[in-house]
Amino acid sequence: MKKIFAIDIGGTKISIALVQENGKVIEQIVFPNQKGKDAMLSVNQIKIRIQDWIKTAKIKKGDLLGIAAVFPGPVDTKKGIVPWSPNMQGWEGIPLGAILRKAFKTRVVMDNDANAAVLGEKYFGAGKKVAHLIYMTVSTGIGGGLIVNDQLVRGENYCGGEVGHMIIVPNGRVCGCGQKGCLEAYASGTAIAKVAMSLAKKYPSWAKKLRAESGKITAKDIKLAALKGDKRSIQVLQEAGFYLGIGLANLTNILNPGLIILGGGVISKQNAMWLAMKKSWKQHSWTHSQDCCQIIPTDLGASVGNLGAAALVLSTRAS
Amino acid sequence: MKKIFAIDIGGTKISIALVQENGKVIEQIVFPNQKGKDAMLSVNQIKIRIQDWIKTAKIKKGDLLGIAAVFPGPVDTKKGIVPWSPNMQGWEGIPLGAILRKAFKTRVVMDNDANAAVLGEKYFGAGKKVAHLIYMTVSTGIGGGLIVNDQLVRGENYCGGEVGHMIIVPNGRVCGCGQKGCLEAYASGTAIAKVAMSLAKKYPSWAKKLRAESGKITAKDIKLAALKGDKRSIQVLQEAGFYLGIGLANLTNILNPGLIILGGGVISKQNAMWLAMKKSWKQHSWTHSQDCCQIIPTDLGASVGNLGAAALVLSTRAS
Repeated sequence: MKKIFAIDIGGTKISIALVQENGKVIEQIVFPNQKGKDAMLSVNQIKIRIQDWIKTAKIKKGDLLGIAAVFPGPVDTKKGIVPWSPNMQGWEGIPLGAILRKAFKTRVVMDNDANAAVLGEKYFGAGKKVAHLIYMTVSTGIGGGLIVNDQLVRGENYCGGEVGHMIIVPNGRVCGCGQKGCLEAYASGTAIAKVAMSLAKKYPSWAKKLRAESGKITAKDIKLAALKGDKRSIQVLQEAGFYLGIGLANLTNILNPGLIILGGGVISKQNAMWLAMKKSWKQHSWTHSQDCCQIIPTDLGASVGNLGAAALVLSTRAS
Repeated sequence: MKKIFAIDIGGTKISIALVQENGKVIEQIVFPNQKGKDAMLSVNQIKIRIQDWIKTAKIKKGDLLGIAAVFPGPVDTKKGIVPWSPNMQGWEGIPLGAILRKAFKTRVVMDNDANAAVLGEKYFGAGKKVAHLIYMTVSTGIGGGLIVNDQLVRGENYCGGEVGHMIIVPNGRVCGCGQKGCLEAYASGTAIAKVAMSLAKKYPSWAKKLRAESGKITAKDIKLAALKGDKRSIQVLQEAGFYLGIGLANLTNILNPGLIILGGGVISKQNAMWLAMKKSWKQHSWTHSQDCCQIIPTDLGASVGNLGAAALVLSTRAS
């Protein structure tokens, strides 16, 4: 079976997986992303590690379908560069696509990680037969990948799918992007942690119980406490779920998708955020659009980035 | 030059235009839409009038490219019916597509009017070279037609593009659709009239000046008064423009379009709503997405519905 090198380049680490064309991850390595002025060191690391891998695993040229790299933030898919990025300082303008193409004489494709993730769902996940598909990652931030009419929505200059920055509360909470009232400021892990920290000031004994040592409370702490039945934590998740439901309702009314898949570490079917999200989604979107749409958690797990990258290679196979 | 019968079926009237394939409207007739239990009378009217027209204008079979009908609300484009509709009582389930096909032995296509309008802009208007295009009509309600990757966004069950019902204020004003906080409840003609009527209670002498005879104030009254410099009317339009800008910013961040075209009678480049909308759009969307996107008023005028229908025939020509 043919193989793909699937590179998931994140804000702090780089993960390279050797993936079979059926989506099976054969092996995976992870190392730090040296951003800023050392970004080229990361590029060289990627090159060297793939070169070694090809040797040790005895991968023949004919066995390699291609290499894909995905990034958080916009990617100029034609030029094979990151044109600008709030999370990838130093990577802007590096011709990674051309560098890898020259080194390995194979097809190299690049894209945004959420765009790749929704393709991963279409090739290897629950979205196989769905023409209109939304992938949303609820994590530190909120990102999205959209498939409409079986095609990725990259937009006019690679900024499509910025669903986390739709405004759902005019003049609302300040978001990391500088705007006010973004979905991300209400339903992301960062938002949950912020709400929890402001509650911690009001209820210090509650805060102590949640995380005695550092005083800091993360979205993960809230998630765990809620699972154990802590009412205040449940309320925090319910509020985030209410706003997430509005964001998903808006996407449902605008795009009328057949399936919405949620990834990221913050929401899962077990926690209070899920039920609140579903209730709010039903309340805020049209019945006829709900009727044909399901919301499910991703089943691609932590490798969704690598599998997305692999799908990217498969999606460009015919063209 | 080949010709198309382009039927724009609205909530109160039906307009049929004979359109050339280059978008020139040769002739147009308008008559009332008899909805409810008399909907079939309207269908027969459409049939008879086209039959007469073919005779009097001596249109030969080879000269006719096809017939298209557009409706406000969802249309099952495959079956050629209105599956359900808040504005078209009695029309649900009538096989208009099949009826016209049988009567005229030509290609018959049907779609939602906003979907058709955005196609009209792509074939005959400002959207000719744009792959990612949004048409929004701001009128009694707010509707939208979306083109992504050069294709219409119809969605999973023909409900795509319901941009007027994206929630922009959680638990906000009640919308005509029954939900709370929809864009339509803040930026449509109906919303402007409602705000004006509530101001009229507070400022009766102002209201009298605006529309002495009936006591009712419409969006048109506010628009005219604002053009004459009435400060309160300007504020009403500015508020509506602020919210419209949020709605357009959300679409910009989600779809990263190259062009947004605004139609409908409420907003125009001359009124205060336009400036407020632009300011709010710039405030609430990402700079990089704005950079490649223009917002302009439609130049297809009142025939946008008919021209959209004509474009629908052209768009299905190859398939």
